Amino acid sequence: MNEMTMPGRQIGRSLPRLEARDKVTGRTEYVHNLRLPGMLYGKIFRSTVAHGRIRNIDVTAARAHAGVAHVITGEDVRKVIPRPFYGPAFHDQPVLALDKVHYVGEPVAVVLASDPYVADEAVQLISAEYDELPAVFDEVEAMSSQAVVHDELKPAGTFPDLKHLQGRRNTNVALDFHLRRGDVDKAFATADRVFEHTFRTQQVLHLPLEPFVSVAEPTGSGITIHTASQSPSFVRIEIARLLGWPENRVRVKVPYLGGGFGAKLYIKLEAMVTALALLVQRPVKVALTMEEQFYTLTKHASTFRIKSAVNKDGRITARHCEVWWNGGAYADIGPRITQKSGFTAPGPYDIDNVSIDSYSLYTNLPPAGALRGFGIPQLVWAYESHADMIARELALDPVEFRRRNILREGRPQATGTLMRDAAIEAVLERLAERLDWNKSFDRGSGTVRRGRGLGIGFKASISPTTSIAIVNVAADGSATLYCSTVDMGQGSDTANAQVVAEVLDVAAESVRIVHPDTDVTPYDMATLGSRSMFHMGNAVRLAAQDAKAKLAALAAELGLPPGSNIPLPELFRRKYGMQAGNVIGIGSYVPTYESPNHDTGQTSNATPYWMIGGTAVEIEVDTETGHVRIIRIINVVDAGKPINPKIVEDQISGAAVMQLGFTMQEKMLFEGGQVTNASLADYKIPSILDIPPMISEAVDAQQHDGPFGAKGVGESGTFALSPAIANAIEDAVGVRVTELPITAEAVYRALRTAANDPLEDA
Amino acid sequence: MNEMTMPGRQIGRSLPRLEARDKVTGRTEYVHNLRLPGMLYGKIFRSTVAHGRIRNIDVTAARAHAGVAHVITGEDVRKVIPRPFYGPAFHDQPVLALDKVHYVGEPVAVVLASDPYVADEAVQLISAEYDELPAVFDEVEAMSSQAVVHDELKPAGTFPDLKHLQGRRNTNVALDFHLRRGDVDKAFATADRVFEHTFRTQQVLHLPLEPFVSVAEPTGSGITIHTASQSPSFVRIEIARLLGWPENRVRVKVPYLGGGFGAKLYIKLEAMVTALALLVQRPVKVALTMEEQFYTLTKHASTFRIKSAVNKDGRITARHCEVWWNGGAYADIGPRITQKSGFTAPGPYDIDNVSIDSYSLYTNLPPAGALRGFGIPQLVWAYESHADMIARELALDPVEFRRRNILREGRPQATGTLMRDAAIEAVLERLAERLDWNKSFDRGSGTVRRGRGLGIGFKASISPTTSIAIVNVAADGSATLYCSTVDMGQGSDTANAQVVAEVLDVAAESVRIVHPDTDVTPYDMATLGSRSMFHMGNAVRLAAQDAKAKLAALAAELGLPPGSNIPLPELFRRKYGMQAGNVIGIGSYVPTYESPNHDTGQTSNATPYWMIGGTAVEIEVDTETGHVRIIRIINVVDAGKPINPKIVEDQISGAAVMQLGFTMQEKMLFEGGQVTNASLADYKIPSILDIPPMISEAVDAQQHDGPFGAKGVGESGTFALSPAIANAIEDAVGVRVTELPITAEAVYRALRTAANDPLEDA
Repeated sequence: MNEMTMPGRQIGRSLPRLEARDKVTGRTEYVHNLRLPGMLYGKIFRSTVAHGRIRNIDVTAARAHAGVAHVITGEDVRKVIPRPFYGPAFHDQPVLALDKVHYVGEPVAVVLASDPYVADEAVQLISAEYDELPAVFDEVEAMSSQAVVHDELKPAGTFPDLKHLQGRRNTNVALDFHLRRGDVDKAFATADRVFEHTFRTQQVLHLPLEPFVSVAEPTGSGITIHTASQSPSFVRIEIARLLGWPENRVRVKVPYLGGGFGAKLYIKLEAMVTALALLVQRPVKVALTMEEQFYTLTKHASTFRIKSAVNKDGRITARHCEVWWNGGAYADIGPRITQKSGFTAPGPYDIDNVSIDSYSLYTNLPPAGALRGFGIPQLVWAYESHADMIARELALDPVEFRRRNILREGRPQATGTLMRDAAIEAVLERLAERLDWNKSFDRGSGTVRRGRGLGIGFKASISPTTSIAIVNVAADGSATLYCSTVDMGQGSDTANAQVVAEVLDVAAESVRIVHPDTDVTPYDMATLGSRSMFHMGNAVRLAAQDAKAKLAALAAELGLPPGSNIPLPELFRRKYGMQAGNVIGIGSYVPTYESPNHDTGQTSNATPYWMIGGTAVEIEVDTETGHVRIIRIINVVDAGKPINPKIVEDQISGAAVMQLGFTMQEKMLFEGGQVTNASLADYKIPSILDIPPMISEAVDAQQHDGPFGAKGVGESGTFALSPAIANAIEDAVGVRVTELPITAEAVYRALRTAANDPLEDA
Repeated sequence: MNEMTMPGRQIGRSLPRLEARDKVTGRTEYVHNLRLPGMLYGKIFRSTVAHGRIRNIDVTAARAHAGVAHVITGEDVRKVIPRPFYGPAFHDQPVLALDKVHYVGEPVAVVLASDPYVADEAVQLISAEYDELPAVFDEVEAMSSQAVVHDELKPAGTFPDLKHLQGRRNTNVALDFHLRRGDVDKAFATADRVFEHTFRTQQVLHLPLEPFVSVAEPTGSGITIHTASQSPSFVRIEIARLLGWPENRVRVKVPYLGGGFGAKLYIKLEAMVTALALLVQRPVKVALTMEEQFYTLTKHASTFRIKSAVNKDGRITARHCEVWWNGGAYADIGPRITQKSGFTAPGPYDIDNVSIDSYSLYTNLPPAGALRGFGIPQLVWAYESHADMIARELALDPVEFRRRNILREGRPQATGTLMRDAAIEAVLERLAERLDWNKSFDRGSGTVRRGRGLGIGFKASISPTTSIAIVNVAADGSATLYCSTVDMGQGSDTANAQVVAEVLDVAAESVRIVHPDTDVTPYDMATLGSRSMFHMGNAVRLAAQDAKAKLAALAAELGLPPGSNIPLPELFRRKYGMQAGNVIGIGSYVPTYESPNHDTGQTSNATPYWMIGGTAVEIEVDTETGHVRIIRIINVVDAGKPINPKIVEDQISGAAVMQLGFTMQEKMLFEGGQVTNASLADYKIPSILDIPPMISEAVDAQQHDGPFGAKGVGESGTFALSPAIANAIEDAVGVRVTELPITAEAVYRALRTAANDPLEDA
């Protein structure tokens, strides 16, 4: 091993992931593998009705089943958590259903046994009776439905901009976000042309290959929770709140995750295992099956009505956006999506007059949460389809139409925030260049036609959020990073190691990472929204710089001249008389932020940075079957200056493949609120054979306040794939699809329909 | 729970131990309970000769035994550790014997199996042949014996004062420490009286009720060692050195210990399990039996020849000390004891002319190491017996004799270091007071006689040593301490929590402790030598103060006036916009120190602080049987200002009980180097019935630079018990015992011997 003696520039190195060898040799630690002495397994009995009052839960037979230790219901939970309702935005979700159930699949009771198969058998012996209540499933209907999911809104109090909803009754609107800029009415009244279209997206799933799993272990000092979570710090604080304990009695440990994609945020099984473990005073594990993921968290289905005023010269003068987000039965982080993504609904365009109305709706479906893009792919689907439809109507080249309208550096976005470090134009031009946009394109003839299309999207980062890191330099100069960023496959361990290594001038391979453990790794808001590279990256950079400054101070204390470059082991030996000691650096990072005005949505500082993602595709459509074959995909993003170019490329590709599934094939099917394709046999995600040739790249860019110029990239590949394909389909065969997924059947139907009005299509 | 709202003075509280409930409910984590998936158990085949060249090790039958996974010998170890020799002072001890064996019981081979009983069976099938070599067992004989234990001395290089021994051959002297102060020869030549006596102590054992145990687990990034160790930081650094790895690839985790007493320091089983785990690429556990502790580490037997020049008025004018320490086959920390305790050999007396020669000897016995007192009880046994013998000869009251000679504040100790914060006089006077020394004492008549006696001792702390701590304050104000101090029953978790709590003005019960884990808890030299309360206590204090200063800075940053006393949760909320963040304080403590002059042992700064311990006893001697009954024991110490008075009292009593066993009953018996009483059936430690009424107290004192005035106390109760009893025996029946243990047989023999010359008695 020569790793300590290999200093050099660590940023921009496509270092293989630090954990790669462990992963391929099966040594990686996952919560699914954890077994503790005396541990019980919990299996969940779930609601069979979409909305109903619980009349009776009969657990007699289950309790009598040989090998069953306990059967727990919502009323039992109250013994250890008097008010057992959790959630990041609203305290609306019970640990186990209390009084009412709000969707099919909601957890109602748990059987505990030493043998998980025994627990599973006993679950089949439970029965429940409900007084059914009217249910609502569609997000637009939910606006005015007589079926009201929750009697009263209960904001968590965490976000000040939800406080006005406290106690609101008889509504399914969990948040209404409004933005007003300029004079939209006047602009529409004086416009040369007005275009209005409606677009819809479907419910889909995160489907990490590691399903949800949590283990809780009562200890003398409190409780330790081992969980596959993207947000260990949130889990600690929320469990402490539920129990009425100080934070330091709740320990949350997170090893590697087998994917997250936004599903494993906030509380999922953690409150349940905590309540169970405290009730029975034994370690309890609840590990969901792949099928149970369908009952836990979905991506928001959405309806987006977008209306634009456009002048003859192709300049957009006004845009009105109405977005309805189908939040399902519990709000989860939906209201934040409604707002935080809502304010980018007009797209990366320079429009003087903008109005946005964005609604988060409760419905009687499984809860919807953040899913790789945090609402942005739903919005881009609409505004980039809309863009091409306008361009086509105006007989403008779609790239040229975008060039005339895109937001350029220094111009105000819809919130009024001036754009900075947002390479929108560079992304657009790079896509056009990669696509040879200016060269002639053979659209084919006969039954198979070819088309090409593109789209660009952008996303703000969630703000303000905090990340803290500790860098500990041992007496031989080897460094360890303590941080609560969860490596769920995105390569954060490796990138953070590179940041430490760059500052300390050592090889990134030599940096050791301590995984999230709230007793030791400091606070991090969560691993979500592509925030980690920027926020935690900055905290890690600051921690390493703090350590470096302390090493320099130590050298000065020992009388060494500045820049004396004494080897670290020798420095420690001189200070401590032997190989002893540590130098510990701390980095805390929270970007500045200004809350948007409640009425107008205006703010001078809406986000610490912008993510830009664009996709271009070439496709073939079989006009006899509607089958669409993707010939190639080109993804171009602005990720600032990549810390690890290969990981950035993989992140872009991975996001695009995920979005490809959501675009072409994935859809949760419901009948009366009951999902009918809750298995990977029926719900098909992309296989390796579904992935077309793909180019994924980052434009040459720099985030001025990012760590070494970097910013997030985990979601950018999802933004614009869907409209790029729809635009290419229209380019190929002249029909417009306005609803996802774009199945062969949908294209076939569109081809066979004479009228091509997207509003009818919706 | 109301613990967060209960601020108050936390120092001086006799808070019950934080882990008490876990311990009595069986929840405490110990390494013996740890089982890892795929783990193999190792059982050790040991040498049957005291000194010999290995001719052959036959493992054929063991390897063929059903269920045996591997049989490993010293040559195998070389495949993963090319130079497999470890030790804190000398790199002399092999992981498994190589070429030679140096004592009976030395590990020669290990059998690995999934079932520890199978491994044990297979060990019986191993045989080895040796070419025996001459052996030496006595420490004084070892000075000049033709039997040389090691061909060549190999100092570890850690301690500069051992460097001159590098490469020295044909000697059993592992360290010779010399101190010269004043003109000893002249003082003896002009003295009114000269007294010379020789005292001996025996080999005894630490015998923690949790025997040695270590587990090593190969990981992708290195190795994790779970071990019952008092020195996790040392283990990390030493294992890294053996493997040639950076520190941060070696993770050492230590939960609670079931006692340590100095046995579980440095490397014990850790190198063995590391080598085994790396060889077989599976987790490996080696857990010793109670019997195997007899083959692992002992307390130094010693011979101390002490000679004093005394004037008519009872003032000691010169003292010459020769001490021989029986280090056994491997040096362990013996050379440090030779030096660090050696320099206090003249006792806590103000003597102008002093010479000390202190020798660490290799012999063919099990290695000797630090045992609660680090050599001090052996020295005090001699100098406090000697004191009474002089007083008796001079017909001086023993207390009065001591009063005339004790070291008072500001006077130079033998090293030249001026005494500070050393309540020698207060301890002496308190003992006399507690014993009603000035009142008449009924010595009885007939066969049962009564006597009383006392002794006082002192100890320097090991120096320079470093402790580092991290205090992490969560967003709700709850605090967590990361520190590598090992709580092995001494109550360090509780005391450290009190220090944090005092600084942060919260309840000590609310402070959470993260146990040693070298990946997260910073460096600490080790939990030894009563150093933790002072060194780590100071580091913890500094870390808490650093956190407090950062909280104040945060308040100032938010525009709050100084002393605004804003609740911490509100402070964090204002900074981070929600319950988020941490404030992290770091404390690093290393006291100043000046190495003693190599030739004279003189230094102006020999120790950061002094520990003083005195014991007084009343006893009865049955003159017909020699049986000694202890009527009562009074222990008085200077522990500075106790952080937790109850824990201090328990520490004093516990130490005294341990020393009572060493004084009255415990002794390892050897035949040809073979221990013949290696079981708790034959080697008796004090039971509850052996413990007499006891008073343990600390005088009112203050260590000026201790944390809140505190200093260490873990060993002080051991110092003076043995000579107090011997002095009381002479007081009762007029005979002098000069060798430990003071069995009934020894007293009986002394009573029946007319001549009472201690030199003949040795």
